[in-house]
Amino acid sequence: MWSGIMASMEITVDDVKFLRSCVDAIVNLIEEGTLELGSDAMGVRAMDASQIAMVVFSAPKSAFAGYKVSGSEKVGVNFADLSKILGRGRSKDKLIIKRKENKLELEFRGKGSKRHFSLPLLEDAGGGQKEPKVEHDALVKIRGGEFKEMLRDVALVSSHLTMEAKGKEFMVSAKGDSAEMSAVSEKGEKKEFEVDAKKEARATFPLQYLDDIAKACPDDELMSIHLRSNKPVKLDYKIGKAGLTYYLAPRIEDE
Amino acid sequence: MWSGIMASMEITVDDVKFLRSCVDAIVNLIEEGTLELGSDAMGVRAMDASQIAMVVFSAPKSAFAGYKVSGSEKVGVNFADLSKILGRGRSKDKLIIKRKENKLELEFRGKGSKRHFSLPLLEDAGGGQKEPKVEHDALVKIRGGEFKEMLRDVALVSSHLTMEAKGKEFMVSAKGDSAEMSAVSEKGEKKEFEVDAKKEARATFPLQYLDDIAKACPDDELMSIHLRSNKPVKLDYKIGKAGLTYYLAPRIEDE
Amino acid sequence: MWSGIMASMEITVDDVKFLRSCVDAIVNLIEEGTLELGSDAMGVRAMDASQIAMVVFSAPKSAFAGYKVSGSEKVGVNFADLSKILGRGRSKDKLIIKRKENKLELEFRGKGSKRHFSLPLLEDAGGGQKEPKVEHDALVKIRGGEFKEMLRDVALVSSHLTMEAKGKEFMVSAKGDSAEMSAVSEKGEKKEFEVDAKKEARATFPLQYLDDIAKACPDDELMSIHLRSNKPVKLDYKIGKAGLTYYLAPRIEDE
Repeated sequence: MWSGIMASMEITVDDVKFLRSCVDAIVNLIEEGTLELGSDAMGVRAMDASQIAMVVFSAPKSAFAGYKVSGSEKVGVNFADLSKILGRGRSKDKLIIKRKENKLELEFRGKGSKRHFSLPLLEDAGGGQKEPKVEHDALVKIRGGEFKEMLRDVALVSSHLTMEAKGKEFMVSAKGDSAEMSAVSEKGEKKEFEVDAKKEARATFPLQYLDDIAKACPDDELMSIHLRSNKPVKLDYKIGKAGLTYYLAPRIEDE
Repeated sequence: MWSGIMASMEITVDDVKFLRSCVDAIVNLIEEGTLELGSDAMGVRAMDASQIAMVVFSAPKSAFAGYKVSGSEKVGVNFADLSKILGRGRSKDKLIIKRKENKLELEFRGKGSKRHFSLPLLEDAGGGQKEPKVEHDALVKIRGGEFKEMLRDVALVSSHLTMEAKGKEFMVSAKGDSAEMSAVSEKGEKKEFEVDAKKEARATFPLQYLDDIAKACPDDELMSIHLRSNKPVKLDYKIGKAGLTYYLAPRIEDE
Repeated sequence: MWSGIMASMEITVDDVKFLRSCVDAIVNLIEEGTLELGSDAMGVRAMDASQIAMVVFSAPKSAFAGYKVSGSEKVGVNFADLSKILGRGRSKDKLIIKRKENKLELEFRGKGSKRHFSLPLLEDAGGGQKEPKVEHDALVKIRGGEFKEMLRDVALVSSHLTMEAKGKEFMVSAKGDSAEMSAVSEKGEKKEFEVDAKKEARATFPLQYLDDIAKACPDDELMSIHLRSNKPVKLDYKIGKAGLTYYLAPRIEDE
């Protein structure tokens, strides 16, 4: 680990809440991972422990009040611990993040008080996986809040759901032991909803993963869902200037 | 089960919250039961599993935006599942309830979205018990919120309580290992409170049942309590146009 | 137990919430104890079960709407039960506390309702310990809310913390297995913060006790922290007209 010598960093955050939302969007899927710091952006690419889902996070330099990273640096971080520390930020605090040898130093500066946390860096926290390439047949754009409501409907009946796009319709359905459900969103009346299906697309996914993926999406934010029959779905949305992309493998049922 | 052939039904609900309150008032006491659909009203009459309490629910045709039931029909329903589904209704949704063979179909129609749940009907879900006939000696009218506060006072000291009406007073009291309590409501200062006791009446009941019975009563709604010494108490209140009546057996103590 | 004969008491409380806050400030540290009723004030002095912390409570006669105590009286009370009963007071209730033989009688009087609780008195509930005398080197005055925030920062990393005062700074720090923290409050910018350190003072305490001690302090109230290196810390604050003082033993680490 010579990176302490190779590079230095100092990141200033005015809106601690923004950074916490980003870290939560990662931590919902993976607990530990590698933060890649480039001179123009910060990013994370990681598979979840079960290798079923992947998260790709990227925030440009401009998302921060200050961003000084010379060269490129990789720091292994426990995102769960980092999220808890960010949760201690107060509304008017300024946050300065530095690396000091094998620690990540976080300093909250408020009126008449300074609070300082230091977090050990992890060696070999994994990460850096390649994104899967799938040509999708259908693209659905739906508000985060709307999609999360659909997932709550599903939760009443099953732990799996089927997503389907055809024509101008996007449908979520599930079948449980004691009840069944289906929810259809239709293009037309709602402005913030789009379906573009070159071909009918339909696949089945575990509910828990979609919950974890959608959780951090702001309710008003548009989420894009890229579907292809029985292929991994790609979901992406923005948190402020940062982008989150998720891939989730389908459940292939025997026929 | 020929009822699919014998009759058909379609009920339209504008205020899903109203219907959910009614179902919750039932489900607090019994999980499964038979919904009796007549041409003019919908009803439920059922004993709880321990045979200590009974609930009688009745909602007239006029409580619904649409109510088409030809003949009379009995459908066995898991009220707990039904309550969860009704809980998914959004404020502007319209709900259409239909029966389709051995399923109850619920469709929420909102702006640009349709959500559909189907629930299996149960065979032989019990119900249809006769209401006990007791000539009561005292009638107390008290606001639901007031009565629930009394039950919370009791909860501090015991799992049983004694209700007593005499003159212009209604008294609730309880005796526990570490403390005792009594709460007296008196006619006079409070408008929404009445006691009409032809004879002094006093009986002891399990707190948990009274909690379950009172839970669904709106805080502002008047609850009627019909008491007679050591006889089942009858409690009733309205939820909108629907009526709920409960009977609860007393605890007879050895002397 | 001849005290029933020796003395009589009647205390009237207009602000039940105030009394509940006081009892909670005691109960956070000790569950049972002796309430000492003098003709001019009410008080409690008690060690916690582990003998690590002590609470001294005192409320003058003037803190109550009515306070009639002839002579002096000691009543053993389960403060946990008393707190729950006080929690049942409603905003406009008047509370009358009396002693009746071996019971404490509490009566809430509201509009058109009277509620009555009786609590058995305890024999030999302990109490009456002497306050430790320590000449402290540093006095810190900090708002309750501010101090509680510092404790929440600590909670992320460890179950122990070090408090330190020197010059115009007050510092709290903690070191855990996975992270470290420190929080510094500095005299100057903040009005409601003072440090008066004749000599540098520094000691380590268990977090849980400081949580229990600070919990009942109103966020806006000034808390005084009297520090001396490796000696018991003394913390005090007011709840209305009542005063709370706590002593907490330091953790002496082997070197």
